[in-house]
Amino acid sequence: VSVWAIVVAAGSGSRFGGPKQYEALGTHRVLDYALADARAHADGLVLVVAPERAADAEPAADAVVAGGATRSASVRAGLAAVPADAEVVLVHDAARPLAGAELFGVVLAAVREGADAAVPVVPVTDTIRTRPGGGDPGRTLDRATLVAVQTPQGFRAEVLRAVHAGDPEGTDDASLVDDAGGRVVLVDGHAANRKITEALDLEIAAALLVAHGDPR
Amino acid sequence: VSVWAIVVAAGSGSRFGGPKQYEALGTHRVLDYALADARAHADGLVLVVAPERAADAEPAADAVVAGGATRSASVRAGLAAVPADAEVVLVHDAARPLAGAELFGVVLAAVREGADAAVPVVPVTDTIRTRPGGGDPGRTLDRATLVAVQTPQGFRAEVLRAVHAGDPEGTDDASLVDDAGGRVVLVDGHAANRKITEALDLEIAAALLVAHGDPR
Repeated sequence: VSVWAIVVAAGSGSRFGGPKQYEALGTHRVLDYALADARAHADGLVLVVAPERAADAEPAADAVVAGGATRSASVRAGLAAVPADAEVVLVHDAARPLAGAELFGVVLAAVREGADAAVPVVPVTDTIRTRPGGGDPGRTLDRATLVAVQTPQGFRAEVLRAVHAGDPEGTDDASLVDDAGGRVVLVDGHAANRKITEALDLEIAAALLVAHGDPR
Repeated sequence: VSVWAIVVAAGSGSRFGGPKQYEALGTHRVLDYALADARAHADGLVLVVAPERAADAEPAADAVVAGGATRSASVRAGLAAVPADAEVVLVHDAARPLAGAELFGVVLAAVREGADAAVPVVPVTDTIRTRPGGGDPGRTLDRATLVAVQTPQGFRAEVLRAVHAGDPEGTDDASLVDDAGGRVVLVDGHAANRKITEALDLEIAAALLVAHGDPR
């Protein structure tokens, strides 16, 4: 089975004041961890970057492509660079440097065992409410019924291509598979696999690298 | 206005392998940070602990009471020790050591300005799905419509007493006020005010204390 990974690093990082995936973390950039983790299980790697970085050398990737205006558009740009004979495609956020190669293997195994899509999830530890608005005062959801979704997400390549036809917008790729009625399998993610959204998250990731020893 | 705070430290910490609020964090126990933050804005402090700890000396609290079988029951045990003339009651999780005294002030101000309840919230950064079950495959929620709820939560004392009559169970106290049709006001929490649920969270809190300087 030919496996390709798309690492999405095209975000503008508007909440962070700059593209967080290029910040230093330990001795590397944030995105280098994502590339290394993906490489452990993928035959080929497509890195999706902001258009102004598309000419930058990224020797760890097999292809570098310019992203689109949205995350979904960026995944499609990456998918266009994945060879037609790829059977499994893994999609990962460059801003999750602590996923670990092992989690890629778990996601890949779930797709090989028949899932259309496999996504790592963790329990939701905070109480979650809906925002008030339009006369709705907001309400508390039952967190026992909720999970928080991480990447890497894995897909049968033909399914991922099919759900992206028509240029849909989704929060993530698994939600597009949901909408299409595909079989989404949940696997156990882990708490350290946090997305770096703001400066505090980068501090946390740095602390975790020190505490656990940088494996790279 | 007489302000009392209830700091809830009665949890068994089943996910952590022990009561996390008694773990060391910097030079103090986790719960000492919560007590110090609450003290900055409260005239009196009730600490709710597990029954086997109810005889322990806790000089930072004005009263120590034994908690109940659930979080809501523990809040009621604390509320029973709050003087009848208290006008505002703040409820805080002992497992949130990095709330900061300033946030207590913001919550208190919202209650003074007329809210039945005031709760700090932060944006949800992860994609959230419902768990599959009972034939339901699960679905992705729109995270833009969601917020994550923190403590301290502040209440008009008469409202908090009223919603706890009848021994209801709620994820948090604000959700009881929701259910009663009360006016819940959301204020800005902050990302560092994380709940310590597992060992990783304690490592993160320790790292943040070092990075920002222990204010105590």
